[in-house]
Amino acid sequence: MVLVNGKPADSINTSDRGLNYGDGLFETMVVVDGRVRFFDEHLTRLQEGCQRLAIPMPRTDAIAADLATLVAAQSEAAFVFKVLLTRGLSGRGYLPSKESTTTRVSSRHKLPPDLSELWQNGLVVHVCKARLAINPILAGLKHTNRLEQVLGSIERVDTQYNEGLMLSTENLVVEGTKSNIFWRTGGEFFTPSLENSGVAGVSRAKVIELLEDDKQKVNIGDYSLAEVHSADLVFMTNSTMLVAQVVRLQAGAELEDTIWKKHLLIEELRQSMANLK
Amino acid sequence: MVLVNGKPADSINTSDRGLNYGDGLFETMVVVDGRVRFFDEHLTRLQEGCQRLAIPMPRTDAIAADLATLVAAQSEAAFVFKVLLTRGLSGRGYLPSKESTTTRVSSRHKLPPDLSELWQNGLVVHVCKARLAINPILAGLKHTNRLEQVLGSIERVDTQYNEGLMLSTENLVVEGTKSNIFWRTGGEFFTPSLENSGVAGVSRAKVIELLEDDKQKVNIGDYSLAEVHSADLVFMTNSTMLVAQVVRLQAGAELEDTIWKKHLLIEELRQSMANLK
Repeated sequence: MVLVNGKPADSINTSDRGLNYGDGLFETMVVVDGRVRFFDEHLTRLQEGCQRLAIPMPRTDAIAADLATLVAAQSEAAFVFKVLLTRGLSGRGYLPSKESTTTRVSSRHKLPPDLSELWQNGLVVHVCKARLAINPILAGLKHTNRLEQVLGSIERVDTQYNEGLMLSTENLVVEGTKSNIFWRTGGEFFTPSLENSGVAGVSRAKVIELLEDDKQKVNIGDYSLAEVHSADLVFMTNSTMLVAQVVRLQAGAELEDTIWKKHLLIEELRQSMANLK
Repeated sequence: MVLVNGKPADSINTSDRGLNYGDGLFETMVVVDGRVRFFDEHLTRLQEGCQRLAIPMPRTDAIAADLATLVAAQSEAAFVFKVLLTRGLSGRGYLPSKESTTTRVSSRHKLPPDLSELWQNGLVVHVCKARLAINPILAGLKHTNRLEQVLGSIERVDTQYNEGLMLSTENLVVEGTKSNIFWRTGGEFFTPSLENSGVAGVSRAKVIELLEDDKQKVNIGDYSLAEVHSADLVFMTNSTMLVAQVVRLQAGAELEDTIWKKHLLIEELRQSMANLK
């Protein structure tokens, strides 16, 4: 089911700037028993994204009303709630119209069918050829300019890989095509800085919070792929899978893939996340 | 008037990947007396873009049929013909569906109302704070991930500027928000390389061709903003305005703007472009 500006609809105007210029933002949330996991955090990120892109944020109660309509529409206990905002309609050209009003598309989707499998078996990950550009004005945002992630994802079509790890154009590790990445080396945790590239995931922030609450050291910085390969433990996070362990990471040509045994910590972390309010 | 996959329509499905991920490409062309200026060149660029993004290109005769319908719909002698292609519909997620088929949105728009003024008075240009990221996998393409250009354009809302000049994150001159840039210094012409960033404009290619046919030296490379400020003559190109001279370029804080007198060469170049087939 899809709601456009609060009303059931399955289409948007061809003049919408979301279609023409990727001029928008989105949030992907998980609803369990009528309640959005980390709803405040998602709304805060959306608000910050709107501020940075100068897109007027809709009222939170409009988004909550969309959610209530989508919850009432079907009976599954858990589903994905996606909210997409665009700068709205305008004539041709990058310059927005002063009359534009934000388009809000709220939709309900099934959870990924392979979650149990990913949790049980872990993630088999390749390193994408497609790189992520560096641009602080867009870094961190969950905006709808996602060609880099699309090209990164296309690389694993017809392969056995569950996810692709993306490096920046400066060869630093950034994130998965649809997830953030963490690793543990010598008792400390590491995750890439997202000041220049990448999406600052809500689940990533929750993992950092949980680890720090547990007195663990979490380092946020600039890291090379070699540092991931030499880690004791690697895992990835996003809103639908929460956290899943990487069990195999593709190495370069003529090198053997790095393999990690399943570690109990990841299952504990996932349970802790699922239990958070 | 808008045609979606050849049929009159004013909307597209909310599951379209163009809306959700900016997963598409477009061409902006000018039609004069039923004929598209530089049609072959625009179609070639679209084809190349489709190849690089792995989006199936529609048949050229489908695009030509859209054009015929749009030409027949109204009586203005000249108008803008925009063709937008997206990877089509899919479920949620960056990974495309194998069943996706390209969405084609062809539309007719008025020419910009200020063309005569721009040709006569020249362009007053500021330097955008928003930077263009560097990523060779997307450079040159007229894709629909245009947030950088949107943010660059927003900077001139409520100002007297006609265009914004954009630098890369590495401080090199790339292009205008909606145009390419050229300048002449000491008898030679210069335009930025678009190997790492920017859109390879059809009009830019035509200007290079015209200048080289006229035995002029055109240098394509990496240049700083200082080189534009110290040029004898600066001009910008795009499909609707063809070519227009820059008469004033914003300098940094506490420095005076650089000003250029109108030069006959630009009007000659514009006439030559308008006369090309």
